[in-house]
Amino acid sequence: MKLATLRVDGGTRAVRLDGDTLVDLGYDDLGALFAQDDWTTLAANASGATWPVTGADFAAVVPNPSKVICVGHNYTDHIKEMGRELPSYPTIFPKFADSLIGANDPIVKPAETDALDWEVELVVVVGKPVRRATAAEAADAIAGFTVMNDVSVRDWQFRTIEWTQGKIWDSSTPVGPYVVTPDEVGGVRPALEVETLVDGAVMQHDDTGTLLFDPVRLVQYVSTVIRLNPGDLIATGTPAGVGHARDPKVYLVGGETVVTRIAGLGACTNKVVKAS
Amino acid sequence: MKLATLRVDGGTRAVRLDGDTLVDLGYDDLGALFAQDDWTTLAANASGATWPVTGADFAAVVPNPSKVICVGHNYTDHIKEMGRELPSYPTIFPKFADSLIGANDPIVKPAETDALDWEVELVVVVGKPVRRATAAEAADAIAGFTVMNDVSVRDWQFRTIEWTQGKIWDSSTPVGPYVVTPDEVGGVRPALEVETLVDGAVMQHDDTGTLLFDPVRLVQYVSTVIRLNPGDLIATGTPAGVGHARDPKVYLVGGETVVTRIAGLGACTNKVVKAS
Repeated sequence: MKLATLRVDGGTRAVRLDGDTLVDLGYDDLGALFAQDDWTTLAANASGATWPVTGADFAAVVPNPSKVICVGHNYTDHIKEMGRELPSYPTIFPKFADSLIGANDPIVKPAETDALDWEVELVVVVGKPVRRATAAEAADAIAGFTVMNDVSVRDWQFRTIEWTQGKIWDSSTPVGPYVVTPDEVGGVRPALEVETLVDGAVMQHDDTGTLLFDPVRLVQYVSTVIRLNPGDLIATGTPAGVGHARDPKVYLVGGETVVTRIAGLGACTNKVVKAS
Repeated sequence: MKLATLRVDGGTRAVRLDGDTLVDLGYDDLGALFAQDDWTTLAANASGATWPVTGADFAAVVPNPSKVICVGHNYTDHIKEMGRELPSYPTIFPKFADSLIGANDPIVKPAETDALDWEVELVVVVGKPVRRATAAEAADAIAGFTVMNDVSVRDWQFRTIEWTQGKIWDSSTPVGPYVVTPDEVGGVRPALEVETLVDGAVMQHDDTGTLLFDPVRLVQYVSTVIRLNPGDLIATGTPAGVGHARDPKVYLVGGETVVTRIAGLGACTNKVVKAS
């Protein structure tokens, strides 16, 4: 299944994609759907109101997750371009729900930076509560996958030794358009082409099958530290090719269009606009 | 006013301390209270059910904040003990709501660590929505102050270059017992004695008036990056004297009692227990 959170009539609805139609699942958003124990059955069987997918206005797939955990240093080539050794443990940093935007929303460049950068990421969407998950429990807790552009404010990211302040900017981070269930992408460790295009030029290109810490391992690792709730997001890291690691460095400016896409999951397509 | 979130009858209630009595304010918790535009008037005038403060079971002052922002390197002596220069910018890292516990709850030492440490912190509790706050707006957005023990899992904190995974452990972090409004502590930049005691021995002792980045400045800084919502928490950093910086290092073990207290705000008193 491909599931989404659609903006309609001043609110949002959880929907399923059937061909070129979006079908109402009876919940306000995918977070509310995933909170139901039997959400897979509910989502498969629902037959509510419909909307055409053409022109759909997608919200963040889960608009209000209790936590967004991001992983750094997880593709070998990106680790090398940032000048680092292969790590023994995942590097973890946060976003908050207020950082998220929909798959096709504009990315507003804050006036406080001239170092706005892209990072395409495969995102694990949690579908069951888990703590200290075994590999089997972790696999079973993966509702599906989506795409994030982990938009990063590099000057603020490197103001101090902690990246957080460059990673949590308000309304900075597209995530969507769909949560695609594992059965549609070859399981819980999918090997999918992942790429970023800026005004059509390919800036990042890799395969999610090359992740050092795969989705199941990440659910296990994070859930050792803190419970994962339905709707929580784990962004699994970005491949080589970010603007900050280029020589000379390249950053996003107003007027550009960034596409972050993963084969089988879809794309976030976002216009960069200057703060008014 | 001194406000709290009290556990009663399987739920929680927002309460005001009147002498030795806790008075129901008509909301489930302080987060719900602070979401009301006129919460100060509501809190001052409410006269609901009462409970004796003796034996009160406090929840985290705000059980479900949309974000918990923590600041590192904010007391001069602590910066020096960790071997660092005085910073130009606040260092920021996260916690999540699922990390929080009540002021007198046990701290369960995870089986995955033998490097559990204390950090007493003055916490700013946000009472109004703000983004890119001026100094006046920031001051006005401070609902009050409380105490946090930013319990840290040092071995996980230093596994990678990002501290997050050592800071967000589930149910690790006491916060409370009260949110005390600024008028009771000398305003929005209070100078209060702050200390940690482990089994009665003073381990940290300083004055919140010596913060490099004061509460108003921190609300301004964080709100530049991301909106602050009513109930959000900003932990302002810890003074010198953490266990990890001692020679030899000292960590918490099962059976100890940690008291983190700030004059005028009260104390978190927490028994450390081993995971069963």
